[in-house]
Amino acid sequence: MRILVTNDDGILAPGISALARALAPLGEIEVVAPESGQSGAAHAITFLAPLICERISIDGAFFGWSVDGSPADCVKLGVHELCEKRPDLVVSGINAGANRGVDVIYSGTVAGAVEAAFIGIPSLAISLEASGGFDFERAGVHAREVVARALEIGIDPGTVLNVNIPRLDRGDPRGVKVVRQSTAPWTDTYDRRADPRGRAYFWLTDQGERGDEPAVETDLSAVRAGYVTITPLQHDLTEYRQLDRFERAWPRRPTP
Amino acid sequence: MRILVTNDDGILAPGISALARALAPLGEIEVVAPESGQSGAAHAITFLAPLICERISIDGAFFGWSVDGSPADCVKLGVHELCEKRPDLVVSGINAGANRGVDVIYSGTVAGAVEAAFIGIPSLAISLEASGGFDFERAGVHAREVVARALEIGIDPGTVLNVNIPRLDRGDPRGVKVVRQSTAPWTDTYDRRADPRGRAYFWLTDQGERGDEPAVETDLSAVRAGYVTITPLQHDLTEYRQLDRFERAWPRRPTP
Repeated sequence: MRILVTNDDGILAPGISALARALAPLGEIEVVAPESGQSGAAHAITFLAPLICERISIDGAFFGWSVDGSPADCVKLGVHELCEKRPDLVVSGINAGANRGVDVIYSGTVAGAVEAAFIGIPSLAISLEASGGFDFERAGVHAREVVARALEIGIDPGTVLNVNIPRLDRGDPRGVKVVRQSTAPWTDTYDRRADPRGRAYFWLTDQGERGDEPAVETDLSAVRAGYVTITPLQHDLTEYRQLDRFERAWPRRPTP
Repeated sequence: MRILVTNDDGILAPGISALARALAPLGEIEVVAPESGQSGAAHAITFLAPLICERISIDGAFFGWSVDGSPADCVKLGVHELCEKRPDLVVSGINAGANRGVDVIYSGTVAGAVEAAFIGIPSLAISLEASGGFDFERAGVHAREVVARALEIGIDPGTVLNVNIPRLDRGDPRGVKVVRQSTAPWTDTYDRRADPRGRAYFWLTDQGERGDEPAVETDLSAVRAGYVTITPLQHDLTEYRQLDRFERAWPRRPTP
């Protein structure tokens, strides 16, 4: 079992070395990860510039490839060029911060796993809810348990398992729940400032907690309640419930 | 009707001024777009750095805000800070190149529209298939027709219409088709080169054409056949067909 490990916090982030160590008993680890932090990189890819790679030591325990690109770049390049053999599994994380609800759209961690699914390799994204600090060692134990169970069950090559581990400063998780993704939006606000020349610039502020969809259990509510959550993801964004309506509305004649 | 126009090719790209001109008869246009090209930016957002904005003239016909961020940043910042009033509609494009199939995951153009959906504003993403050059003026006519019809029909605030216009160098489109998104993957290859110091670097190569899912009409096949395509998108990535299977497989006991 060959496991490609990536992340979006950068190859020197503590979450990725904790993940590599935690997964080492399950297979042969290869690390290919961004040179620098890529939080919020989403599914960005690099095709108008080249990707420069460097082989580096991680914690003295693993060698890995540092790539000056996004998590999706790392998975593409890792699978097609850098890994000695095609990986059997891609695991992305452990992200410093949960990736729940619409975060899956913004998340570089999740994008690394989704890219693996595009290529036809089963994958998981692992994220740890913030609680002041991050206990990545303990999170690694939970990550390994989930990955091992997922391998027993089998993950379809087109499916990603998005895994969130709840904050660990209040004790162990209450269990594991398989839940759907919330679609509740963030409420964004910006802090408007003036530079020394008087020009306006803007910081996206800390968005605090979101509301959730009422009366449905989602990744948002279940992580908040202290559960490890697992959400299988797919990448067909078609809104099937509206296909018929628009189809009827649009005659097939040529546009003018 | 206030229309926020954005794109991912940058505020000075010809596609966005063609779109702004084409939509001007439908409402009041406000342009908020990236300072530089953001192709492949996907749904990246900026929260660890500030966003610097500049008011600039576009083609001498419109004023717009140039933002040193991604398309999603532009929509967030446009709606919350830069636009005089909340837009009624967001239109992203016209992208130089189609955004079909899994391109919707990589595309900054589509991400700008999806961000609008998160905020609760109806939106469309408009892309033009490459054919050596791009006839954005003619594409603008087709874009306006689609936007006008969409407004008549009504777009749910959480829905994005992803619109692709076929290459126009072979004549007018054969009509309009409402189709689902293809999930056919790209086949990536990299061109490996050595820098003057002997270090390896990699270029993602031109990926050529993809295969498509057989026997189903998708955005991929319909654009290729010469149709304007419209695909309603949503942003719940849950793989519902596998929820039950994983739920049964995962006991709710605590992980060790």
